[in-house]
Amino acid sequence: MAHFHPSRDQLVPEVLEALLRTAAVERLETSEGVDVLVRADHDPAAGVAVVSGGGSGHEPAHAGYLGEGMLAAAVPGSLFASPPVSAVLEAIRAVTGPAGALLVIKNYTGDRLNFGLAAERAREEGLDVRTVLIRDDVALPDIEQPRGLAGTVLVHKVAGHLAAQGAALDDVAAAAERTAAGIRTMALALTPATLPGAERDASRGAELGLGIHNEPGARSVEVSGADDAMALVLETLDARSLAEEHGARGLVAVLNDLGGCSPQEGLVLAGELLGQLGAEPLARLIGPAPLMTSLDMHGFSVTLAPATEELLSAVDAPTAASGWTPATTPGEPRSRPAGGPTAEAAPEAAEQAPTTDDGRVEQAVRAGAAALTAATEELDALDRAAGDADAGTTFAAGARAVDELISSGELGFADPAAAVRRIARSLETAMGGSSGVLLAICSTAVARALETGRSWPEALQAGIAAMQHHGGAAEGDRTMLDALLPAQRALAEGGGLSEAARAARQGAEATAALTAKAGRAAYVPEAATAGAQDAGAVAVARFLDALASALR
Amino acid sequence: MAHFHPSRDQLVPEVLEALLRTAAVERLETSEGVDVLVRADHDPAAGVAVVSGGGSGHEPAHAGYLGEGMLAAAVPGSLFASPPVSAVLEAIRAVTGPAGALLVIKNYTGDRLNFGLAAERAREEGLDVRTVLIRDDVALPDIEQPRGLAGTVLVHKVAGHLAAQGAALDDVAAAAERTAAGIRTMALALTPATLPGAERDASRGAELGLGIHNEPGARSVEVSGADDAMALVLETLDARSLAEEHGARGLVAVLNDLGGCSPQEGLVLAGELLGQLGAEPLARLIGPAPLMTSLDMHGFSVTLAPATEELLSAVDAPTAASGWTPATTPGEPRSRPAGGPTAEAAPEAAEQAPTTDDGRVEQAVRAGAAALTAATEELDALDRAAGDADAGTTFAAGARAVDELISSGELGFADPAAAVRRIARSLETAMGGSSGVLLAICSTAVARALETGRSWPEALQAGIAAMQHHGGAAEGDRTMLDALLPAQRALAEGGGLSEAARAARQGAEATAALTAKAGRAAYVPEAATAGAQDAGAVAVARFLDALASALR
Repeated sequence: MAHFHPSRDQLVPEVLEALLRTAAVERLETSEGVDVLVRADHDPAAGVAVVSGGGSGHEPAHAGYLGEGMLAAAVPGSLFASPPVSAVLEAIRAVTGPAGALLVIKNYTGDRLNFGLAAERAREEGLDVRTVLIRDDVALPDIEQPRGLAGTVLVHKVAGHLAAQGAALDDVAAAAERTAAGIRTMALALTPATLPGAERDASRGAELGLGIHNEPGARSVEVSGADDAMALVLETLDARSLAEEHGARGLVAVLNDLGGCSPQEGLVLAGELLGQLGAEPLARLIGPAPLMTSLDMHGFSVTLAPATEELLSAVDAPTAASGWTPATTPGEPRSRPAGGPTAEAAPEAAEQAPTTDDGRVEQAVRAGAAALTAATEELDALDRAAGDADAGTTFAAGARAVDELISSGELGFADPAAAVRRIARSLETAMGGSSGVLLAICSTAVARALETGRSWPEALQAGIAAMQHHGGAAEGDRTMLDALLPAQRALAEGGGLSEAARAARQGAEATAALTAKAGRAAYVPEAATAGAQDAGAVAVARFLDALASALR
Repeated sequence: MAHFHPSRDQLVPEVLEALLRTAAVERLETSEGVDVLVRADHDPAAGVAVVSGGGSGHEPAHAGYLGEGMLAAAVPGSLFASPPVSAVLEAIRAVTGPAGALLVIKNYTGDRLNFGLAAERAREEGLDVRTVLIRDDVALPDIEQPRGLAGTVLVHKVAGHLAAQGAALDDVAAAAERTAAGIRTMALALTPATLPGAERDASRGAELGLGIHNEPGARSVEVSGADDAMALVLETLDARSLAEEHGARGLVAVLNDLGGCSPQEGLVLAGELLGQLGAEPLARLIGPAPLMTSLDMHGFSVTLAPATEELLSAVDAPTAASGWTPATTPGEPRSRPAGGPTAEAAPEAAEQAPTTDDGRVEQAVRAGAAALTAATEELDALDRAAGDADAGTTFAAGARAVDELISSGELGFADPAAAVRRIARSLETAMGGSSGVLLAICSTAVARALETGRSWPEALQAGIAAMQHHGGAAEGDRTMLDALLPAQRALAEGGGLSEAARAARQGAEATAALTAKAGRAAYVPEAATAGAQDAGAVAVARFLDALASALR
């Protein structure tokens, strides 16, 4: 299965059913069972009704544009096929009041004829009906009947907006005609649409100048990137001549996902569009968004229109239609200085006077660092079964960084809180990986606790709690905690550093019998780590051991 | 080229640049050059700031959720990789005022640790910062650290809504925790994501229980359709137990496109979701929409949450964030009777008294019909070069239908307008194809003109004009018009039916030298039709000839 599709004949009914269940639209109970969807809250007496439709497979066109400010009725045909005359006529009858109706018709023969005949018949019934034909495709410059493509959506918006404002049919139709006369659309796709139940047509590659019914594009193209693709499309659209032709000061662009672009591709293409349009100011951008799709066609179209006041007020107006995407006003990327309104100046370790008035602590920390450096290979080996055999290297990097801080005189121990905070910053960057961040979290919380007057056991407790909170591990999960927690308890029970170190060592030894439940080791089979101690817990024990020996 | 992607290292910068150029967001000028995006209009003094982030490649998450009612800052990492601690810290500093900040963290180790350490450091700077961890994935029931997936968006919305309402940090954090505790998410994809520059991984098929970083799903699955795919997902989500657990009267669902679904697939999946949830009432549906994507992953996720009052008011609230999709209230499809408010009862041909008081006209029309039937093979042959060789068959079908109407007494000629209208309806359905609709358009307009007192030449002129307007062809385009227009002119100049028929015949003969410019024949090479008359024009001439002979 290549798509989340039902059978071909079920696709359109299921799509319409989903729309009917989730949007404020209703289905007409038509005599011939043809599909007509109308705005649930449309009042025919309130003004001009805008009606559109055409083959299905272009969602959100057309039923997604039902809603105040856009369409009053939508007439969906079957997949890529025009709806029957009777359906269009029923739609007109359902929504047209004394103010009349405007039919927005994409210039495909079937749509043009079926909507045309429906309009004639509606007039015969005394209804005031106008039509506007959308011919925005510029892919085939010599053709007498250019196709109606994504530019249609702009005509829906202009006509729907004026209708919602209470404009008369004459004015709605005239504005729709002006909009239709100004739009140009060009499409490019990497792969064509795949119809339900069909295989992808591998014979077709990238094509320029596509319609929306999966007919082959005007020509095959070689495309090497998003920049290239956008350049091909913009070249054909000739933004400059469009702006000049209409004497407009800028343009409105629609970037339409033909159905198969990811959000990331859409944004990359938007960036190219903005970058490449260059000199022509872009007053508004609508999209990237799927606005007039061709099933899963992996491509996009760009529609350009002169930025008239009329068009700008229409695209800026809100609408209840779910398929519409609000227009944005593109500009240069903006930036602002970092920093914030209320952050206190962080107590920076560098501000601290580099004192060494407690030579014993400094010596002890250096001994701890040395012990970790010495254990590099042993810890790497312990880590081999559970991870990527770099635990020793990682701890040694942290140890070396701390040692260097002491040597350079940047780290003094006169203010324990400041010293721990300085160590935290150093570990965060020097160690890298989860263990560095976890130890930085722990030390940062320890420093804050010390600063607020807590005792060492209390501060260590706060540090471990922060580590557990953010790291998510518990005692017994085969992590550093299995050495840290026993050590903290020994201190809290009044023991000295030697008792704490002994408790850490016992805790580390006990990890040999534990199953990893946190960190990367949790993803490896239990047997792989059986019998070996956890490298992190051993590192904690070695450090505390050396610290205790030096201070004893 | 398989995607509109730049190189892998350019993808995230280009995506962020496009967002910065089109959305109301600003980039922080951070000291280390890390990416931080903030709401352009965020006022740190106004209340709690909600901050989120994580690896990129999940757009619109996270920068697409910047805006009033959702996020104040977003911290995008590189592709699928957690942002550095310094970036998160700069984000917090930039947007946090006296009311504090809430960090929304997806439970991936990197995010948890880096956001965690940033929170600790922000607290050290005197900022009031809370964190909420999102763990909505239910793909791996025994894992201690469930991943954070699309349910994250609901937490953004709840926290952002309360923050916009001016709630205190305690209340924002508590509501976020309650929301996080209630959400369950399950994903299924047909194909994995393709990273820029990489080939699609053909070794991976449909998988159930995926994360958003393209890691393999919990298990491979065989999926036979959208129904099947949704059933697999909903089975794991166990909607009933969720509702019972939270004592909720209904559910809120998020249908998230993982990046590669077409709009049609999204709607089909929405229909399946609504249909299969069955007994559990769905209070709101958000989506189908790309909300938390994994590049172009062709799949979807469903998030379910208990429909608490708190959640409902949050998802119903408007937001300025462009990535959010308004929630809908699903229901049964609604329908309403067809018909309309102001349509006059259409003058139905069936109401007309079947009179035959003008036997000559009836006889003439039957002669015309007989002439067309007799020309079936000849017209089919003329059509062979230009189309699908069915012109004769099509005209004969229309002729037969009219003949049958006369035989059955349904068509009388006492009221010429009514007769022409009845013929129009008959041709529309009996002939099919473009020519049937075109003749119906013509006859409908003729009937309306006759009704308003126009003469036959004037009425015919109106009919031909309607045909040209909707059909889009001009004289000389090698169509029926090349016989109809000369005939009409002959009548208008005071000629009789014989002159009109002669003019039509001459016009038809002249089409042999014309190039097709309208209809399907416009798409075939000129040489294919050279020397042959247009079948439609010949049909018109034959009909008029027979009519004229009979009335002579």
